[in-house]
Amino acid sequence: MDIIKSPIKGAGSIKVFAPATVANVVCGFDVLGFAVNAPGDEVVMRITGKPGVTISKITGDNGKLPLSADKNTVSASVQHYLKHINRTDIGVDIELHKKMPIGSGLGSSSASTVAGLFAINSLLDNYLTPMELVPFAMKGEELACGYGHADNVAPAILGGFVLIRSYEPLDIIKLPVPEGLYCAIVFPDVDVPTRDARQMIRSKVLLKDAVVQWGNVAGLVSGLFMNDIDLIGRSMKDVLVEPTRSILIPDFYKMREMAMEMGAVSFGISGSGPSVFAFTRDEQTAATITQKIQQHLTGLNIASYTYVSAVNQQGPKIIG
Amino acid sequence: MDIIKSPIKGAGSIKVFAPATVANVVCGFDVLGFAVNAPGDEVVMRITGKPGVTISKITGDNGKLPLSADKNTVSASVQHYLKHINRTDIGVDIELHKKMPIGSGLGSSSASTVAGLFAINSLLDNYLTPMELVPFAMKGEELACGYGHADNVAPAILGGFVLIRSYEPLDIIKLPVPEGLYCAIVFPDVDVPTRDARQMIRSKVLLKDAVVQWGNVAGLVSGLFMNDIDLIGRSMKDVLVEPTRSILIPDFYKMREMAMEMGAVSFGISGSGPSVFAFTRDEQTAATITQKIQQHLTGLNIASYTYVSAVNQQGPKIIG
Repeated sequence: MDIIKSPIKGAGSIKVFAPATVANVVCGFDVLGFAVNAPGDEVVMRITGKPGVTISKITGDNGKLPLSADKNTVSASVQHYLKHINRTDIGVDIELHKKMPIGSGLGSSSASTVAGLFAINSLLDNYLTPMELVPFAMKGEELACGYGHADNVAPAILGGFVLIRSYEPLDIIKLPVPEGLYCAIVFPDVDVPTRDARQMIRSKVLLKDAVVQWGNVAGLVSGLFMNDIDLIGRSMKDVLVEPTRSILIPDFYKMREMAMEMGAVSFGISGSGPSVFAFTRDEQTAATITQKIQQHLTGLNIASYTYVSAVNQQGPKIIG
Repeated sequence: MDIIKSPIKGAGSIKVFAPATVANVVCGFDVLGFAVNAPGDEVVMRITGKPGVTISKITGDNGKLPLSADKNTVSASVQHYLKHINRTDIGVDIELHKKMPIGSGLGSSSASTVAGLFAINSLLDNYLTPMELVPFAMKGEELACGYGHADNVAPAILGGFVLIRSYEPLDIIKLPVPEGLYCAIVFPDVDVPTRDARQMIRSKVLLKDAVVQWGNVAGLVSGLFMNDIDLIGRSMKDVLVEPTRSILIPDFYKMREMAMEMGAVSFGISGSGPSVFAFTRDEQTAATITQKIQQHLTGLNIASYTYVSAVNQQGPKIIG
């Protein structure tokens, strides 16, 4: 690869927002994901005089995340990026501002990593395309979750709905976003580590259940292309993973019943949970759903965070 | 249901063609299928004075198919249709002209059944929509194969590419047909009964393989909507069923290698086999592929039938 000739842009400092994401989208385990406008994380990146990547500050993480540049997913993926493009001569310092909960199943590590990669790539005049950034963000996921998946990072980078058709070779397809689709998210603040949530899932499944699942995946993808929200709703069923993962989520089936009765198009687990989400046809219904479910969780003495958002179409953006 | 008031149309006789179909489309086991312009079957239906359904003639079947109205899939599904619409007072006689091989994996029974149902429905002024005919045709499949599947009959009735998102309840989605897509079909004349081909398939599969499969199903569906023939080609891989079914097909992997070297977009088993098919970007490539594969099979002392066709967009049609 040629060494980049272009100088670093602007004042040598940039602030980037990257969105939270909902992976799996109920039926599309490990292959589908979409981005939301809120929540998300922010990264401030400054050019330093000295080669190497440092993290000077992390806010909003309650001290949970490592400041060591090799161990933090943001700095590690930026290091990986700079090495790949032969620019280890560059030095940057990172401030990470967590604006969303960790361990929520909303792609928290992905939002941070993608914000960092988008920042460095913007400072280097968009040397790589958004699609080319995906493998670097997957490296960050590997560090965070022990598994380099793409169903959070790809929608966080590209925005919208994303299909990861294949991992070897990596083949990512951006899917259309239906008009007027809103997302209601509730994060019940209970602990569901991604690693444990994955290990609970059976390694073998019945072929007949797998057929039901890929019929639904095909239906959901068709619904996105056809702008058919009814079809999207009736396709969003998961016979394979949800029955196991829902065990870790307080009152999952009750929350689903509530959401569907209030007019949700669909309801399910975001990523490995414990966050849950519903699609709706308007913002008000999404707001009502989050409010009522939060009240229900409060009655169970479970704290929760709620978010209402359209599907994010843009991916990361420069905010300063 | 109201009793049909409309009189039987025209001269009380009709001749219908219904197309052969390729089920599964490699990655979409039990959920995807498409129709071709050739081959297909023909049914001549005549109104008789006497209530009931009879079959007076079957040609092209080498005596394999039953003339008994209860046992033949064409007459049985027409009986079922007439009973459903409360018109058992009507009498029809059927001539079935098999214009395609039986046991080929090209939806032979489906083509016959669909021709019969389309004929009676046309005589009754299209009382049911094409979509409403699907369950009646599935009854015919149950009689023919012991399993009421829809991945042949739905595309035979509707034309084009069809997704069976769900069986319970039945939910069928018509998918777009990419421009310029041609299909090369070779039927090596060896015996692969549908029942046996299904029984060979393992009932349990690895979840990780199922994920690969539904990534590909989603990729194929996306490719159809995006008119992206490259994406269609790279999505048409089957890690679950083809490895087993290909055992019953002479020189399957050699035929695939030949087709891909000659410029095929994709290659796989049609339904439960033994027919194989390739997608191509033009008619000439499809013709060359069928010719060369037929020569190869002849060298192995295996007789074969070949067909070259665009994807059928229309479904059944009245031809007399």
